[in-house]
Formats: sequence, C-alpha cells, structure tokens
Amino acid sequence: MSSIPVLEIFGPTIQGEGMVIGQKTMFVRTAGCDYRCAWCDSAFTWDGSAKEQIRQMSAEEIWQELKELGGDNFSHVTLSGGNPALLKSLGVLVSLLQQNGIRTAIETQGSRWQDWLLAVDEVTFSPKPPSSGMTTDFLALDYILEKMKHKDISLKVVVFDEQDFAYAKQVHERYPDVPFFLQVGNEDVHTTDDDVLLSRLLSRYEWLIERAVQCKEMNDAKVLPQLHALVWGNKRGV
Amino acid sequence: MSSIPVLEIFGPTIQGEGMVIGQKTMFVRTAGCDYRCAWCDSAFTWDGSAKEQIRQMSAEEIWQELKELGGDNFSHVTLSGGNPALLKSLGVLVSLLQQNGIRTAIETQGSRWQDWLLAVDEVTFSPKPPSSGMTTDFLALDYILEKMKHKDISLKVVVFDEQDFAYAKQVHERYPDVPFFLQVGNEDVHTTDDDVLLSRLLSRYEWLIERAVQCKEMNDAKVLPQLHALVWGNKRGV
Ligand code: SF4
Ligand code: SF4
Repeated sequence: MSSIPVLEIFGPTIQGEGMVIGQKTMFVRTAGCDYRCAWCDSAFTWDGSAKEQIRQMSAEEIWQELKELGGDNFSHVTLSGGNPALLKSLGVLVSLLQQNGIRTAIETQGSRWQDWLLAVDEVTFSPKPPSSGMTTDFLALDYILEKMKHKDISLKVVVFDEQDFAYAKQVHERYPDVPFFLQVGNEDVHTTDDDVLLSRLLSRYEWLIERAVQCKEMNDAKVLPQLHALVWGNKRGV
Repeated sequence: MSSIPVLEIFGPTIQGEGMVIGQKTMFVRTAGCDYRCAWCDSAFTWDGSAKEQIRQMSAEEIWQELKELGGDNFSHVTLSGGNPALLKSLGVLVSLLQQNGIRTAIETQGSRWQDWLLAVDEVTFSPKPPSSGMTTDFLALDYILEKMKHKDISLKVVVFDEQDFAYAKQVHERYPDVPFFLQVGNEDVHTTDDDVLLSRLLSRYEWLIERAVQCKEMNDAKVLPQLHALVWGNKRGV
C-alpha cells in the first residue's frame, strides 16, 4: 500500500528557515526518522510519544485536508519530518500537488535517496553536525547531491558550538557550488518561556553572525535564525 | 568629477532583509534621496543632520576602505542609501567591485534609472506605500522593471497598516513575475529601548504574517522582518 504516515498538516503559515525563508506555505509533517539527534525539535515524529496521532493517509486524503485547511490561500507545500525522504510513497503526493499547480519544498538530512526528490521544487539538505550525536555518511550525501546537481537545492547546517562550526565549514567546502545556509541551533526545544527563549536565540544568532563574519570560508554563506521560533517559541503547528 | 557622496562604509555583517536575507556582506551607504518618507530609518542620509560626515570618495578609495575594513572576510557588497540610484558615478564602483570578484546588491525605490543597475547582481526595488507620504510613479517603475526583466531582481514593500497592505497587493499584481517580499515596518526608528522595539517588531511581524496568510493574492509572497533590527535594534553601522 502506498499510504503515508502523517503527524501534522497545518497552515497556511510561513516557512521560518532556510532557502525559502518567509515563503507562505502549508506543512505536511511525516512520521519516522533514521536519525536520533540529541536536540531534535521534532522528536515526537520518531520517539513514540505521538504514536497515537500518526494517521496513515493516501496522497489524495492529504490533498483534500490541505484544501480544507488552506482553502484558496496557498500555492506552496512544505514536506517535513522526521525524514520525509524515508518514504517512497511521498512521490505520489509530490506529483499530485504538482498536477494541482502547487509548488513543493522539502527538508531532509540527505541520508536517503528517493527518485521523487527530483520533482520537488526546492530541496534543503541539512546534514547534522557533531552536537547532534549523529555521523554524516558523506558518500551517501555525495551521491545524492550529484543526482540533484542541476536542481534548486541548498545545504543548511545547524550550529550550536565551535565543533559544529568546523563541521559546517567542511560541508561548505566539500560542496562549494551548493548555496549554503548557517542556522542557529535552538538549545531549549522544550521551554515554554518564550521571552527567555527569544533572548537566548537572538544572542546565539549574534554569536553565529560574528563567527561567520570572521571566517573567510563563509564569505558566501547566509546566516539565518528560525523565524517561527522567534515569533511563536516552541509551539507546534504554527 | 565622478566622486561618490558616502555616509557609511561598514561590515562585514549580514544583510538583514529582502531577497538575500542572511547574506554576509559589506555595506556602502550613499547620501541623498529624492524621497522624504515619513518613517525613513536612514533620514540622516538626506535631512542634513549628518552633512558633516559625508565624504566625497572615488570608487578606488571606497574599494580601498572596504578592503581595510573587511580584509579577506567578504565577497559581497551592498549599496544602500538614501537612493543610490541617483548617482551616475556609482557605476564605476560597481565595475571595480566586479573586476575584483565581488558580488553586488542594491536597494532603491525604483524612481530613477541608471544603466549600471544592469551590472548589479541582486537588485531590490522597494516602492513606498501610502504611510510613507510618498506617491509612486508607476510609469517610471514600469520602465525600470521592463529594463531589468531578465535580471535577478525582487520587489519589496514595507507594510505598516491596511492601506499599505492594499498598496502591496496592487504592486504584486502589477508585476506578477517579479519575486515579491512583504516587510514589517519599524515604527520606532529612534527608540533605544531594544526590548520594547523587539517585542513590537515581532508582534507587527505576526500581524503581517496573519494578514498575508489570509490573502490569496499573497500566496506566492515572502513575509520577512528586518533581522538586524531584531538583533541590534536601531543601532547604526551594524
Ligand atoms: S534528522 Fe531531523 S527529524 Fe531526524 S532526529 Fe535529526 S533533527 Fe530530528
Ligand atoms: S526612499 Fe528610502 S532612504 Fe529615501 S526617504 Fe524613503 S526610506 Fe528614506
């Protein structure tokens, strides 16, 4: 069966990060991840805590729900996870959205290939730095980025500390032709104190800017925060 | 003489807004504007208050100062104002930067044409909404956008209120093929109370997102704050 395990469908809202930051979009968040990042802000997609909320949906059902929620107020859908690139069955949804004139974007760590990635309009690969506790399979990433060579893609590395920054440099140097984004890490993915979170995120953002500014290997990088975290804190579904 | 009236040269820092948001860049801010926007955040470029600080510089002198300030840590320069498109003499600087492998970006309201705009890598046109007190010469803007048709350009409209939002819609509909950005207006360009400013900017940003999300004509828009104002408040030179 080609059903898709869905955890959240929400929007319209804006994309808060990366290559299409600010873009008005709907989100479809799928369940399941092959990673277990220490600071994962979507751990509920893989740690079992939201297991009851997972719905097995067909592409057509997802499309109907997107239309119910968004009405005429969207033309862009972001596929998020977990790692949506685990799901062969997502290809049907990507085609269906395309047939209906909807642009698509996706974020994946770049650990798994799916042929339907070629059909997604904007693909962000976000390999995970050392602080995540994960190890990047660079041969897999090489293979995937080679396949996506002429597509609209970007690399995005979340940075928490100096080691992560060194890793980001390594990634950027390995793929110099891929547009590169540095993103501030969120160390408090569970706090509900929005003011504390905000001032912390902004001071970490300032640190990351400072760090990038002093580093000639980052001359062509873009340094961004997560806008949704600045505006809505750690709230889900916005 | 082809000298350029310069008010500020600073960086490297990041571009806080618009089509290359997050990009590491140096800034060159020129003096003089043909507009007098009510809420101008760079009024010192035209209101006489910083007259003593204006330096008449050659392109070569500006390039030297950029290198002194930025060393090896930049490959991108943003030309800002005032309205830099008033200055025929800026063309020499654009060429000089290009010859040195530096990418350039500019922001102008789109009231005046210069041939050298064709040589700038990323051009943001920011026509001013009603709250500015200015009136857009749409025939001039038509002419300029037609000339820039195959270049990497965008439109950006600052929005303070409903009337501005209606104006933004009108601009976006007039030029549907030009990537379109909505930007939160900063109503407190003089305050030094960064906390008040921050919470106000974020709540206005939330309002603008809400407004755009409910408007089908804005399906393809990007909605952005000014990152530098969130991080550094109204401070100059960052
Ligand atoms: S790859 Fe993404 S979704 Fe998976 S554990 Fe890491 S941060 Fe979470
Ligand atoms: S066009 Fe720009 S620089 Fe000129 S007055 Fe308006 S906001 Fe200020």
